[in-house]
Amino acid sequence: MSLEITSVNKSFCGWTKHYTHRSTALNCDMRFAIYLPPQTANGQKVPVLYWLSGLTCTDENFMQKAGAQRIAAELGVAIVAPDTSPRGVGVADDDGYDLGQGAGFYVNATQAPWNRHYQMYDYVMNELPQLIEATFPVSDKRSVFGHSMGGHGALVLALRNPDTFQSASAFSPIGNPVDCSWGQKAFAAYLGKDKGAWADYDASLLMRKAKGAVPVLVDQGEADDFLEEQLKPETLEASAKESGYPLKLNRREGYDHSYYFIASFVEDHLRFHAKHLAT
Amino acid sequence: MSLEITSVNKSFCGWTKHYTHRSTALNCDMRFAIYLPPQTANGQKVPVLYWLSGLTCTDENFMQKAGAQRIAAELGVAIVAPDTSPRGVGVADDDGYDLGQGAGFYVNATQAPWNRHYQMYDYVMNELPQLIEATFPVSDKRSVFGHSMGGHGALVLALRNPDTFQSASAFSPIGNPVDCSWGQKAFAAYLGKDKGAWADYDASLLMRKAKGAVPVLVDQGEADDFLEEQLKPETLEASAKESGYPLKLNRREGYDHSYYFIASFVEDHLRFHAKHLAT
Repeated sequence: MSLEITSVNKSFCGWTKHYTHRSTALNCDMRFAIYLPPQTANGQKVPVLYWLSGLTCTDENFMQKAGAQRIAAELGVAIVAPDTSPRGVGVADDDGYDLGQGAGFYVNATQAPWNRHYQMYDYVMNELPQLIEATFPVSDKRSVFGHSMGGHGALVLALRNPDTFQSASAFSPIGNPVDCSWGQKAFAAYLGKDKGAWADYDASLLMRKAKGAVPVLVDQGEADDFLEEQLKPETLEASAKESGYPLKLNRREGYDHSYYFIASFVEDHLRFHAKHLAT
Repeated sequence: MSLEITSVNKSFCGWTKHYTHRSTALNCDMRFAIYLPPQTANGQKVPVLYWLSGLTCTDENFMQKAGAQRIAAELGVAIVAPDTSPRGVGVADDDGYDLGQGAGFYVNATQAPWNRHYQMYDYVMNELPQLIEATFPVSDKRSVFGHSMGGHGALVLALRNPDTFQSASAFSPIGNPVDCSWGQKAFAAYLGKDKGAWADYDASLLMRKAKGAVPVLVDQGEADDFLEEQLKPETLEASAKESGYPLKLNRREGYDHSYYFIASFVEDHLRFHAKHLAT
């Protein structure tokens, strides 16, 4: 199994590392970042929190901007941040920032030309965790969180796999992608015009009929430019109410869609996950 | 006085803002960032901590990557981060990353073509603080810190102006620029071949004969690629020993020259400054 380290930076007594590897699911080379907290230095196996980034992001944004390493070091949790899509020459792309490279939406594409590489659901659900667990001193305890498109991805993963994840959280998630332009554009391209295939990737629809119950925390800025058109937290809340789902959704006055918002509340999210990962 | 806001992001209950303005000292438009902690919302005047960035950086790096807003919000300290040089069409430049735009070295250039714009010492010492104090709810209490080239700048400012600054600190500063290639290249260009003019911008030389005593904290990573050739903390330490200067220098095993190092110890620096700014 090819795995090459491209950088390592000591961070809060632990290590922020970037790797490349050949992905079978995506049929291309991929990059990911991992933060290994100091507890791993003496062989302790720590649980893993997967971070899924938003549109246009890579494996770098969260590690550089969120300030999460400080808290992960204290709590003894590893964080893994994959890239947001397959990439490279020969990988299908689009001129828009919201489709193609940088915009994988964490789905398994069924439509040409996307289906050759865009299998991000399988990648983040199966291939990447297997690689992480085979390579690093981590346990098989997993939680997931993300931002915007990655918030959507995190909620979908947890709602569809309640036995796999201890907890899920999101900042400004695309809460009902079948009913917003970002989601409709991406889902039509990746999954086809038949909307029947979209429901498996919509957190609001999944939460409405959810049986398992992975605890979910959401933070949403009220000054977020995408709030009304794209994010629709109210639909997520309505779904949770209908099914009695354990959703805690905080609206934060004055905060926008940026990493400054994420950094301001990432400590709450890490403590939420650490509590569930410890059980 | 021209002053235009270009962005505002709520951060830890305060606000990270970026501005552009016309600089008289630099004879061009300049950008800076300011973090205003939540205490300023009700009119409280807070002290100001100036951050000077390293080579190739802008007004953005520190605000995005250091994670300082969390602590500044707690302590009630504003942080101002200027750009690292004059910029724009018509501003002299060089192909090297270590001279010209992005590499102002916080000196007042005396040599053509640099002297027309490269007056960074005056800008960060006088013009920018006057603008900040005239515009924002801040007191006239000032401290200064920085990284690498900006660590050099911070130490020089404090050593030359002991009555102006309450404290100074640096991550991985260029500690003795007259004796390393970065400093020699920049000083020869900006200040001329006569090394007599260089001593006013060398922290080790200034500290050796310092009379006033602004407390100084330095953190230096031991895995820093630039440690031996460019940074020379041992010269700074020898100077402090000679003059009895209040320098506290920490060597940190395994840490490099990156913002991951800065983020790991920025809390120590903010608490150090807050203590001195409160007196």
